[in-house]
Order: sequence, then C-alpha cells, then structure tokens
Amino acid sequence: MSYDTATVRRILDAALAEGREALTAPEGREIASAYGIATPGEALATNAEEVAARATEIGFPVVLKIVSPDILHKTEAGGVLVGVRSAEEATAGFARIVSAALDHDPQARILGVQVQQQLSGGHEVIVGAVTDPTFGKIVAFGLGGVLVEVLKDVTFRLAPVDPDTARSMVDGIAAAEILRGVRGAAGANLDLLTDLLVRVGDLVTDFPELAEVDLNPVLADTERATALDVRMLVSAHMTTPERIPDQDILASMNRIMRPASIAVIGASAEAGKIGNSVMRNLVNGGYQGEIYPINPKASEILERKAFRSIADVPGDVDVAVFAIPAALVPRALAEAGAKGVAGAILIPSGFGETGNIELQDEVVAIARRHGVRILGPNIYGYYYTPLRLSATFCTPYDVRGGVALSSQSGGIGMAILGFSRSSGMGVSAIVGVGNKADIDEDDLLVFFEHDDDTNLIAMHLEDLKDGRAFAAAAKRVSREKPVVVLKAGRTEQGARAASSHTGALAGNDRVYDDILRESGVIRAPGLNDMLEYARGIPLLPTPQGENVVIITGAGGSGVLLSDACVENGLSLMTIPEDLDAAFRAFIPPFGAAGNPVDITGGEPPRTYRNTIALGLSDPRVHALILGYWHTIVTPPMVFARLVVEVVEEFRAKGVHKPIVASLSGDVEVEEASEHLYRNGIVAYPYTTEKPVAVLGAKYRWARGAGHL
Amino acid sequence: MSYDTATVRRILDAALAEGREALTAPEGREIASAYGIATPGEALATNAEEVAARATEIGFPVVLKIVSPDILHKTEAGGVLVGVRSAEEATAGFARIVSAALDHDPQARILGVQVQQQLSGGHEVIVGAVTDPTFGKIVAFGLGGVLVEVLKDVTFRLAPVDPDTARSMVDGIAAAEILRGVRGAAGANLDLLTDLLVRVGDLVTDFPELAEVDLNPVLADTERATALDVRMLVSAHMTTPERIPDQDILASMNRIMRPASIAVIGASAEAGKIGNSVMRNLVNGGYQGEIYPINPKASEILERKAFRSIADVPGDVDVAVFAIPAALVPRALAEAGAKGVAGAILIPSGFGETGNIELQDEVVAIARRHGVRILGPNIYGYYYTPLRLSATFCTPYDVRGGVALSSQSGGIGMAILGFSRSSGMGVSAIVGVGNKADIDEDDLLVFFEHDDDTNLIAMHLEDLKDGRAFAAAAKRVSREKPVVVLKAGRTEQGARAASSHTGALAGNDRVYDDILRESGVIRAPGLNDMLEYARGIPLLPTPQGENVVIITGAGGSGVLLSDACVENGLSLMTIPEDLDAAFRAFIPPFGAAGNPVDITGGEPPRTYRNTIALGLSDPRVHALILGYWHTIVTPPMVFARLVVEVVEEFRAKGVHKPIVASLSGDVEVEEASEHLYRNGIVAYPYTTEKPVAVLGAKYRWARGAGHL
Repeated sequence: MSYDTATVRRILDAALAEGREALTAPEGREIASAYGIATPGEALATNAEEVAARATEIGFPVVLKIVSPDILHKTEAGGVLVGVRSAEEATAGFARIVSAALDHDPQARILGVQVQQQLSGGHEVIVGAVTDPTFGKIVAFGLGGVLVEVLKDVTFRLAPVDPDTARSMVDGIAAAEILRGVRGAAGANLDLLTDLLVRVGDLVTDFPELAEVDLNPVLADTERATALDVRMLVSAHMTTPERIPDQDILASMNRIMRPASIAVIGASAEAGKIGNSVMRNLVNGGYQGEIYPINPKASEILERKAFRSIADVPGDVDVAVFAIPAALVPRALAEAGAKGVAGAILIPSGFGETGNIELQDEVVAIARRHGVRILGPNIYGYYYTPLRLSATFCTPYDVRGGVALSSQSGGIGMAILGFSRSSGMGVSAIVGVGNKADIDEDDLLVFFEHDDDTNLIAMHLEDLKDGRAFAAAAKRVSREKPVVVLKAGRTEQGARAASSHTGALAGNDRVYDDILRESGVIRAPGLNDMLEYARGIPLLPTPQGENVVIITGAGGSGVLLSDACVENGLSLMTIPEDLDAAFRAFIPPFGAAGNPVDITGGEPPRTYRNTIALGLSDPRVHALILGYWHTIVTPPMVFARLVVEVVEEFRAKGVHKPIVASLSGDVEVEEASEHLYRNGIVAYPYTTEKPVAVLGAKYRWARGAGHL
Repeated sequence: MSYDTATVRRILDAALAEGREALTAPEGREIASAYGIATPGEALATNAEEVAARATEIGFPVVLKIVSPDILHKTEAGGVLVGVRSAEEATAGFARIVSAALDHDPQARILGVQVQQQLSGGHEVIVGAVTDPTFGKIVAFGLGGVLVEVLKDVTFRLAPVDPDTARSMVDGIAAAEILRGVRGAAGANLDLLTDLLVRVGDLVTDFPELAEVDLNPVLADTERATALDVRMLVSAHMTTPERIPDQDILASMNRIMRPASIAVIGASAEAGKIGNSVMRNLVNGGYQGEIYPINPKASEILERKAFRSIADVPGDVDVAVFAIPAALVPRALAEAGAKGVAGAILIPSGFGETGNIELQDEVVAIARRHGVRILGPNIYGYYYTPLRLSATFCTPYDVRGGVALSSQSGGIGMAILGFSRSSGMGVSAIVGVGNKADIDEDDLLVFFEHDDDTNLIAMHLEDLKDGRAFAAAAKRVSREKPVVVLKAGRTEQGARAASSHTGALAGNDRVYDDILRESGVIRAPGLNDMLEYARGIPLLPTPQGENVVIITGAGGSGVLLSDACVENGLSLMTIPEDLDAAFRAFIPPFGAAGNPVDITGGEPPRTYRNTIALGLSDPRVHALILGYWHTIVTPPMVFARLVVEVVEEFRAKGVHKPIVASLSGDVEVEEASEHLYRNGIVAYPYTTEKPVAVLGAKYRWARGAGHL
C-alpha cells in the first residue's frame, strides 16, 4: 500500500519537539488520512460561530468534541455532545462542552471544538496498536466500545500484520459472528476491517515513536469502516532489544551444550558442597569429555587433577560451571573469559533475584567483553543426555530421548526431573535459565532447532526478555519440532497502568495467548499438562486429517470422551454410511455405531481388535480414541496387548495414526496403561480427559505447523 | 405481589380451546400487564387508516409489527418496521409489512398490525422462561438481543425465583458490569430487572400451561424495564413427574442399603457366571447378613443352602440381586415382590439400553405393584462397606470411609473402583444406577443424607430424570455433606430444536451449570477431578474464611500456585503489616513476604516449620497452600514429616485449617506426598494445579453451604 509518510513524519516531529505525549484529534485524523484510514467529515472550530458554520457545512446531525492535549478521556470530562441537529444547538453546545471540560480540569488548554459528522448504524469495533513491553508493537481488534472492555473479547497480533493475519483477527474474536451478520441484521464489510488492521499495523511499524493508536469506536457496516475517534500517543523513548545473529547464537550454544571440556570453578572434595555435587554428577553421570576441577587449595578432586585457576588448564575449555559465591564470580568469570570459554554456567544465587542487580550487570558486562554467554545465574545447571552430561548439583539423569525442557524456576526444574524419572520420559536436555541475565529461551530454541537429538521443546517461563525474537524463533522451530510453553503469571499483568482503551486491553494474558498461538506454540494450561504434553506428543504420529473416531467398550466413557473432544477442539468424524455398516458388522445389534462407536461392555478381545483394525485401515479415519472397560471377558492386559499387536501390524504396513486410550477399571488398568504407553499409545487410567488433551495438543501443533 | 390471574386464565383457556400453541402479541401484552410487566404504549390496527390514527395517538416515532399466529420470527419475515415518524409513513408502512409477511408465508393469517411506541436508549436485555425437559420451568436472563445469542452470556434459575435469586441472575452474567454503568454510561435499574424476573417466574409457575415466555428485548434504563416484544407459547400437555415422599424413599433405601438378608436370584456354583461372582463377593466380602442362593437346580452353593424359589426362603428377605437373563426377570421379580423384598438389584442388561423399553416398563410395573424399588437394570450392582456388602459381579472393596459414589455407567463405576483402591480412598458406598428405571440420584441422596457412615456424595450422571427433585434434595443435603457431580454429555443438548430465543438459549449446558451450582453442588469438570475431589474434600477441614496464604520454597511454584488460585476462585490474602513482619522474621532478607510467602530454596526444615506454624496460629489466615522444593537441606520426607508434626500440634490445640501442598522434586516427592495425604494434607507431586483445585472445590462447597 502507498502511504503519505511525509505528513506523519512532520506531525510526529512537531509533537515530539514540543515534548508532547498525546496528539490532538485533528493531528490523529491527519495521520489516519495519510495512511488511508477513513474518518468522518469534520472540522476544527475555535468559537461558537465557527462551530455553527462548520456544522452546517458538514451536515447535521453532528457530534461536538472538545480538543485539548490535556484531556484524554473526553466523554468522562463532559467534552462530547452527540446528536446536535441545528446551528442553534451547535452554538449552545460549544459553550456547554467548553465549560464542562474546564470544570473537569481548570488547567486544561482548550484548542477548540471538533465538529464531526455523526454516523450511526453498523457495528462498533475497536482497532488499536500499543507498544507492549514484551512484544513491542502489537495490533488489537475487538467488538464494541463498552462490551469489549467488560467482556474482554479482544485479540492481538504482532505488528505489522499481513492481510491473512488481519483476517484471522476479524474472524478470531468470540463475537465474530455478529460482524458476519446474524438473524437478519446486516454484517460489516470484513475486507474493509481487514484492510484497516493492515494499515494500523503498518503505521506503528513505520513510526516506532507512535506508542499507541486507538481507533475507538470504528463504525463498520457493509459500506465502510470509519474511525469515529482517533487517539494517538507518542514517545521519544522507544528502544528495540539488542539481538545476536542466529549463527553466533548457534556457535556458542553448540559449544555449551556439547562441550569437549568442562571446568568446575569451585570444585570441592567435600560432600554436601555444591562444587562437590557438580563434580560427582559430571563424573558419575558418565560424561566422557575432559573435566577440570578448579580449586586453589586442592591438587586432586574425585581422582581428577585440580588447577589453581582456569588459566592453568592446559587445553581448551568450552564450559565453566561456577560453584562459588556470587561475590567471587566477576573475577573468576574474567579469567574464564580470558581462557576462551563459550559458556559460563552461573549456579550461584545472590544476583538480580535478591535485588543485587549491579552485580548481575557487572557480570554480564564482563561476559560480553570476552564473548562468553552466561546461563543463569541462580540455576540448578543443565543436563544434556546425548553426552551423558549432568552439569548440575541435582542428581544425574540418564533416560535418553527427544524431549528438551527448560525452566525459569529451580522448583519447576526439579518437578521436571522427578516427573521425567518417574514416568520414564526420554529426555535430551533439561536447562535452568534462572535470572536469564543472558541466555534465554530464544537461544535455547535456536540450539534445539538444530539438535538432531531433540524432537520436542517444552519451556516453563514467567516472562520473555524479547517476546518478538521468541515468537520469530518459535514460529520457525515449531514447524519441525513441537514447542510447548507453560507461561506462568497469567494474572500479574492485570494491574498494569493503562493510558488508553487499547492499552488497558493489552494488560491481558490474551496478548501472550494470541501471540504464542500465532507462533505455533502449544500453550499448556498447567505444569502437569506441560509435562504430559512433552511426554505424549512425540509418541503420537502426526495426524493426516481432522477425522477423529472414538471406539469404546463403555458408553459412559464415550460420552465423557466426546465432551473432552469438544473441549480440545477435536472433530468427531461423521462416519460415512459404508464405514458405519462395517463397524456394525463387528458389534452387537444393540451397540451403537456412529461416533463414538460403542462396542458395548461384555465383548471379547476380537471386537476391540476388529473395530480398531477397521479404524486403522480406513484412510478416512485420522486418529483413534479408545475407551476400555474392564471385564472378565477382556481383562486389562489382554486389551493392552491386543491393541499393541494390531497397531504394530499396521505400522509394519506403513499406517501410522495417533491413538490415545482411556482405561476404566480396577487397578490392573494401571499396568495396562503403562504397557500401552511404552508402545506409543498414549494411555491413562481413571481419566477420560488426559488422553484427549494430549491428542488435542498434538492436533494444535499439527495445524499450527501446517500439517493439516 | 398481587396479580390479575383471572385475565391470564381467560386468555390461556381461549388459546388452548382454539388449539393454538402461540399467543398473539396483544394477548402476550395483556398477560404481561396482568402480572405487572411493563410494555410500551401500543394498539392493534387492522387497516392503514387505523394504523395512522393509533400511531398519532401514541406519539411518533412508532414501530409497526405484523400480528399473525403463523409468524413467530417477525423480523425475518419482514414484518417489522421501525422509526415510523409520521401518519403518512404509517399508512405506507402498513401495506409494506403486510405484503412482506405474505411473501414470507402466503398462508399466514394476518390479524392486523401492532402500532408500538418506539423507545430507545438504555440497555437491551432478554428475560424469559421455558419448560426444560429436565428441570421444568426455568427463568432466563441475558444481555442484548444479538449479543446474548452469539456470546451465550445468559443465566438460568428454577422458577419461581425469589428476589435474592433474581438479583443473583442480574449480577451473574458476564456482562453484568454494563448494567451497573461503565465509563460514564448510565446503567439500568437493577431493582426493576430483579422485580421483572420475579414476576416472570411467578407467571410460569402459576400457569404451567405457559410453555415459554420470551421478553426480548426488554429495554432497561435507570427509570424503567419495558418489554418491547412479548412472545408466549402455550401447551396443553404439561406433566409433572411423579414423586415418592421422602420418608417412603428412606424406608425402602434403608432396607436396600443395609439389608439383613439378601437373595441371589440365579446364584451359581460355576466360576465365570455372574451369579457365581455375586455369591463369592457377598460371601468373601464379609457380609454378615443372611445370604440365600436361589437356583432351582442346586441344593447348595458356596456352602449355603440353595432354594428353588425365593418363595421357599424361610425368613424375610430385604434385597434380591438378579443374576439371570432379562427375559426371566419379570416372573422372578413378581415372586420377589410377593416375598416382600424392598429392593430388586437388576444386574442384567437387555432392557431400555438395547431398545427393549417394553420389557423395562413391564418390570417397573411389576415392581410398583409390589412396592419394590428397582436398582438398574444394566448395572454392576452396589457396595456398602459399613456392612462389608459387595453385591456386585466385580471384585470386593473394603477400604471403609465416608465417600459415597454412584455412576450411571458401568465403565465409570469400574474407574471409581480402581481409583479408590489405588489411592486408598475410604468409601462407604459405590452404586451403579444404570438405566435408572426406578431408583435414581434423588433416592440415593435421601439415603446418604441420613447415613452416618457417609460424609460426601459424588455422582457421575448423564441426565437427571427429575432435575427439580434432584435440585431440591441436593440443596438440602449439600448443606451438611458435599455433593460432587460429574455431568457428562455437556454438548449433547446443543442440537435441541428451538422455538424461541429463550428456548434456543436453554439448549445450553449452562442450565445444568447454573442450577447445580444454585443447589450447592460442586460440579467436577472431568472424571479425574470428580475422583480427586471425592478423595480430598472430606480430608480438609471447613475453612472459616476466605484468606488463603501460599507458603513456598520455590518462587516459580508460587507463581503457578497463584495462577491456580485465580482460576479456582480463591482469594490470596492481603497480608497485614504485622503478619508480614512476622513472616519476614523467619525468611532470608532476599525472600519475599507478601503472598505468596517465598521462603526461598535453600532453607532448612525450621523455616518451613516456622512459617507454617505462623500461618496456622494467626486466626486471620484461613487456609494454607504449601509449595515444596526438593533440596538436600530439606529432603522430601523431612518436609512431609515436619508438616504432619506441626499440623498435628495445632490440631491438638483445636486449630483446624485446610492445607494442601504441591511438591516439586525428584521421585522421592511421591512418597512424601502420600505421607502427607495419609495425614490429611491434600498433596500431589509434579502439579501445582491439582491441590489448588481440590481446595477450590472445598471452598465452593463451604460457600454454597453457607459456612462462609
């Protein structure tokens, strides 16, 4: 699109030169026009006669609005008069709103009164853009002035937005149906709204100093999308986060995650010390690279020669693990930097998290100077199982597999460790990022993206240092490898001070929610969900379509499994007649085909077998959910074994479909669930929700990654 | 309130006599007036001249609406014209809408045109009442005509509604804030809306033949609440479910659940037969009453004398368990009835669930004749542990405790059994209700209410035979004993055919949701939640207030636990200054007091101990959530034992507060969680969500039961 950027430049420069933070309504309108954003016919008037004259030119009815750089919320200041129908009313109206505005704020500078064509009918929507502290410029869209604020039915995207993304916003609010027209009422022109969102996204992208743009309301009908009120804020202090090029990130991260040699600063022979735990875990964990204990007072630790300083180590060192008090870190880090390490693993606490931000900044500066990347501080360390590397004071972990996990909190890291060990989840890496003074989730994403030993990444985080960089990395990585995120602190942003409607709306967890989803991330609603998704998703083959079929021995489970499908956005297949007949041939006459396929409770193993085989063989079926009911005729382990057999038969023929199972029965179903899980069928006892949630997460990923 | 019931009676009788299902707008308006429901000034006109005359009398602008018993959705038929501003426009309008209506339905009988005062401004709300197949008359309230239908922001209550309940509806919709007035906009008069809901509830209660009342929209501002459009449907076929008096239910249920003697019809010595399993479970389960095997071909089964027929049993028989094919049930049931049994436990399938409704009806009729209550058919049987009674073909269950459970589905019953056994949940009863041909959840509630061995009731159900009776029983019972309900089939009603706006809205799971909540029921979102609530809620003391405090060793867990509090409607206490200082005295200077109280990760056992003791001792704190982080300094079992110790100290002093815990750590946290759970602290490893969900459920119950 072609925009008149010169006009915008001129207005912004003038406002910034005056030290203003808000633009006047006429300025906002002129900028809107420069970017092809429609506003009503209007004019500025500075006295009662002018108001009457301009109103007569524009045509009645008109709206009168106070113009003052000091009054942001005009309605609340009594500075708006609607339905002005004649020159006489206009004259009287001028006096009325000026006096109301001065009552509201006697210091307010009154620049005049804006006379505006009064449009009516159509739908009121809000379109805006704000500068989010995490994500930078984001575009917002919602319905209705008051309603959107009460019901918070609003959606966000990173600016700029392309037309497809903009359209997904218009279609994505809960009340979208209203804009398409319901019960005989006319809808809005969705193309015009889409276009408007694109223009607003372009505007704030082209002019970073535009801190907020608030078009509220925009009157949208079949013919037009007109911004009735335009409010814009500017800021001279817009900064973009510093970014390291991906190839540099990768070079460092490769040395850090796959080191040939590790120095342990503060290594100790004394049990109970962190420097001893780290040494033992490195040695006992089976790490095959060089391990250099650094301790000025020891000659040997765990049968390894110790060095007074890292400088004394004969060969190269890739990673230095710090197990010394915070105060000693700067000097040791400078030495490690001089030695040329790629990464400093800062286990100690006593930095930013205790308020000692200066020390943390100092340490970061030293690292920068030497080209060292910092992990932490205030972390448990990290694991990388392909190298049998346990650079941590926790216990070693050795169940190798494709899941890489990270946590911002040590407590959550320990929960990851315990869950993984307990469930036998195969893990490639567990990384504590702690204070994220340097290395953060973006860096890890870049490494795991290129790590052939990782096939899924799960991250616990409380914030993102650079949400835009994370979103870009996640969008790229998640096409190949599912990225699961547990975003904690969902309600903390609520208290953020708001300077505009859009600003108030953006203090909403929905910003994270929308942008993570747009980046292809699977957001886990809770800790246990993150862990179960991480464990289950890699086991399930990628579905080739949306047709899910439930096969159940218990009608009651079938109903609950159906509920869970709806909740997880899964589509129960409408079973074609021929397939329905084929299912019916296997089940008792009083069983219910359709979907769920209810094979009824007293059936022998072959009924489960036949119906599952049918679901696997028919190419129109894309995923199966099994509901098992414990009976004497088909005991739990008989069921589990037959499912594994039939699935393996089909795998041998090249048929790979995601299958999950819910087992209802006495305690033997626990062993049966484990047998199924070990064989790639995500199965749980005593729950109809969990297996479907994992399948739902797999589908969300597959859709986001473009596989569906 | 005083109502003109005679007018309503006359109109309804006339409409029913004519065989009509819909009332005309003028009839609806007259009924509304009779019940003090405000409608706009209006008049009926039958030709163009009359339209103009009436409109002039009422005052412009007016709305014209077609009046036809054949046209329900006037707008869609082109039968509505708004903004008619003059006599000329009125004349032209008459011709226009009559012709549009006839285009829409050439057969439509046109009774004339309604001329209505056009009101504007204020808020549009919908008020209605429908006859729900489960709950009978229910009253609905929502905001906005189109919005309520798209966003489904609507709430329901059983009719009649008292003023408090009506007010809870007005306050209960998501958009309630709008009606209170936001951002300078005027609100609605909530008292008038409350009053209107009471009147509508009274109207449909007084006149059961009023099948639906739809006031949509009602224009509500600070001065009035006027029903702009009134639509009413009548039905001659309104039935009320048959009800058995509670004392009769109790008399039968006492004999059934606590029988002195049981006959097993179809008892068998042959392993693998259901009649054998039932005998074995009764005998081996340890039931101490008389057991009479009934089998014409055996003289002894499991060393008990067998009888040819129940008629031959020498003494009284309380319960007959049927383990014979469906077709043989009627004759055997008649014999059992003649013998005077209180309950017939119909295990066999082959009745309503396979389409054999006639057989089921026949069996019910036989039972009625003999005063026998039927459990089932199509069930696994039932357990009652205080008598060590396992009248089922599943395995015996003997972990006695206070939780009574029921399930509509056998599969879910088996999941209950397995979960209970696996988790060691103390159970008083597990009951399968199957087809619910007779005994249903209401009957069970009445029994469990009076059963001193039961302190919580958890029910899986797919439907309610008589929702109104259930709601009444649940409301009464839940004041003393928590009632947890897993309502399956949340989305099934969506397809219900709708004949009005309110009718369409009522096809919503929200009806169950609102009415169950109003009845004090804790609704579980899924199967596993129901089980965990059942297990955990009885262990937690009833909280004495809303102040919840999180004490955590892991800041990361604290954030997730806070998120979970918000999600579960729990209030994080604003810690008073003196208490904050008291907490700070125990924790490191860089730890965070406030709430969560973050004691930081490396702390010794005494820090946990001191802070927990402080939380227990301060009477302003009402519940504790503990977040544990596995460290060498305070290993999991050390933590678990110290918590149990300190809690027991306070219990000894009479201090009982609900405490839940989330344990993050390596696999030892599993054993620690079990130790805590066994000692009344609801604890889970690897999840911050579950413990808080159980505490939230306890709070929901406490609030509903009036303890808070």
